[in-house]
Amino acid sequence: MPAEIIDGKKISSDIKESLKERIEALGRSGKVPGLAAILVGDNPASQVYVNMKAKACEKIGINSEVYKYPRDLPEPELIKKIDELNEKKTIHGILVQFPTPEQISEEKVILAIDPKKDVDGFHPFNVGMMLAGKPTFLPCTPLGIMELLSRSGNDPSGKHVVILGRGSLVGRPLAPMLYQKTKGANATVTVCHTATKNLVSFIQQADILIAAMGRAKFVTADMVKPGVVVIDVGTNRVEDPSTKSGYRLVGDVNFDSVSQVAKAITPVPGGVGPMTIAMLLSNTVKACEMQSTT
Amino acid sequence: MPAEIIDGKKISSDIKESLKERIEALGRSGKVPGLAAILVGDNPASQVYVNMKAKACEKIGINSEVYKYPRDLPEPELIKKIDELNEKKTIHGILVQFPTPEQISEEKVILAIDPKKDVDGFHPFNVGMMLAGKPTFLPCTPLGIMELLSRSGNDPSGKHVVILGRGSLVGRPLAPMLYQKTKGANATVTVCHTATKNLVSFIQQADILIAAMGRAKFVTADMVKPGVVVIDVGTNRVEDPSTKSGYRLVGDVNFDSVSQVAKAITPVPGGVGPMTIAMLLSNTVKACEMQSTT
Repeated sequence: MPAEIIDGKKISSDIKESLKERIEALGRSGKVPGLAAILVGDNPASQVYVNMKAKACEKIGINSEVYKYPRDLPEPELIKKIDELNEKKTIHGILVQFPTPEQISEEKVILAIDPKKDVDGFHPFNVGMMLAGKPTFLPCTPLGIMELLSRSGNDPSGKHVVILGRGSLVGRPLAPMLYQKTKGANATVTVCHTATKNLVSFIQQADILIAAMGRAKFVTADMVKPGVVVIDVGTNRVEDPSTKSGYRLVGDVNFDSVSQVAKAITPVPGGVGPMTIAMLLSNTVKACEMQSTT
Repeated sequence: MPAEIIDGKKISSDIKESLKERIEALGRSGKVPGLAAILVGDNPASQVYVNMKAKACEKIGINSEVYKYPRDLPEPELIKKIDELNEKKTIHGILVQFPTPEQISEEKVILAIDPKKDVDGFHPFNVGMMLAGKPTFLPCTPLGIMELLSRSGNDPSGKHVVILGRGSLVGRPLAPMLYQKTKGANATVTVCHTATKNLVSFIQQADILIAAMGRAKFVTADMVKPGVVVIDVGTNRVEDPSTKSGYRLVGDVNFDSVSQVAKAITPVPGGVGPMTIAMLLSNTVKACEMQSTT
């Protein structure tokens, strides 16, 4: 029986609907959530991302400000702008689109953002609060993965989650988020990576498999346990002359084969991708709610 | 063949010897590392710990200051004392002995300590820096476990480490420390806990087993893979009328049986325990070195 498709577009759209209600409630007390996005340089992919985020904000009633700078912007000027946005009352969340040009240290940028406005969940203070199990901004992609699991009826509690990849955006923070004793988590978690021996023996054990290694179509049907739930975080470009751009995006999982044996699986695109933006919006609304009560 | 004993007393004593050299080097430029310990109330175990730490400091040339307060100390007074120590030039590390009486929030205490003097590695900022793989103070017990592995010739790189327990002091921070791509780490890591199903099937897979669940003698020889390396973090009191105190400490591992099949194993006491204090001293020396160069 082919797997149920975990529809990230549908789930993210449900989340955005419920955010609209919270934004309306804020509006009744005169508050509008505001997100500032900063883009340095003209990386085409970064421009696309920033525009997508801005559009997604506007659609649900978040005030979006986009600041674009040339690629030779000196680091101190960027930090000054961040300081200014930290103080700005109408802005509740700040994001700097990475990667930044080489004269700008991503670490310094992350540290410059007020943790209360760090809607990407990248500031070490917020990461530490996460690991301690305290309320904080959780990073968007891992949080989106957890929402996909919960909202598709695949609660990870008591399940064996195998994470492929230990990157700073997904695997590294996701593991502790999943082994915490909280709702939507409470899983036994294994983290695999480039140094893992007998990788397939771990993949085979997964009740829930999170593929975030960045290797196109690596996971095939013969590697997984029948009935596995698969979250495919990979976004790998492969050549495809039949498309206008000459390429298409595929995940880390061979969807065609794995979807024949899995219980449920996310597609690429349309799985994790839309969730990341939805969680950014969710963190921004949360930031506005928190800053309004203090 | 019975297991090699990983001697925490010997390894911690080697570490303290090398710390002495660094303390002497600091002394040549007029610097003496200073550690302030704060104890609120008269919990006997806490008194023992604070005294042990102070004595260990003095033995290797760290200046130790101990501040003892009655159990009804108001929280704001404790925070004021921490602020004062944050500013004090001769103090490079600050620790507050937990648990504190109920009027004092441990979270507030942790947040009050300057991250640069947080030699316990508990401040969320430092925890977040750890998860990001950036240089910071690492929490003493997990760091001690990693030193035990490296210095006993059991490098975890490429090995499957199974951690039993997700407590805030050991399992929760240790997992990301071990799956990082750094020297002395780089392991495939599984975190098990009270919600884990088929716990024994995970224990059996471990190349390195870290037992930090707090269940006396839980792990027995039949559960482990022959040749496993075992780090026993448990310190459970069991009644023993033959001792003066009426009890003795045992680990989470049945030492007598497991030591017959393991490659190497830590005893309790004399394994992880002495390492925790050695790492506190090491963090204090590091704090002094860092504060001296800035």
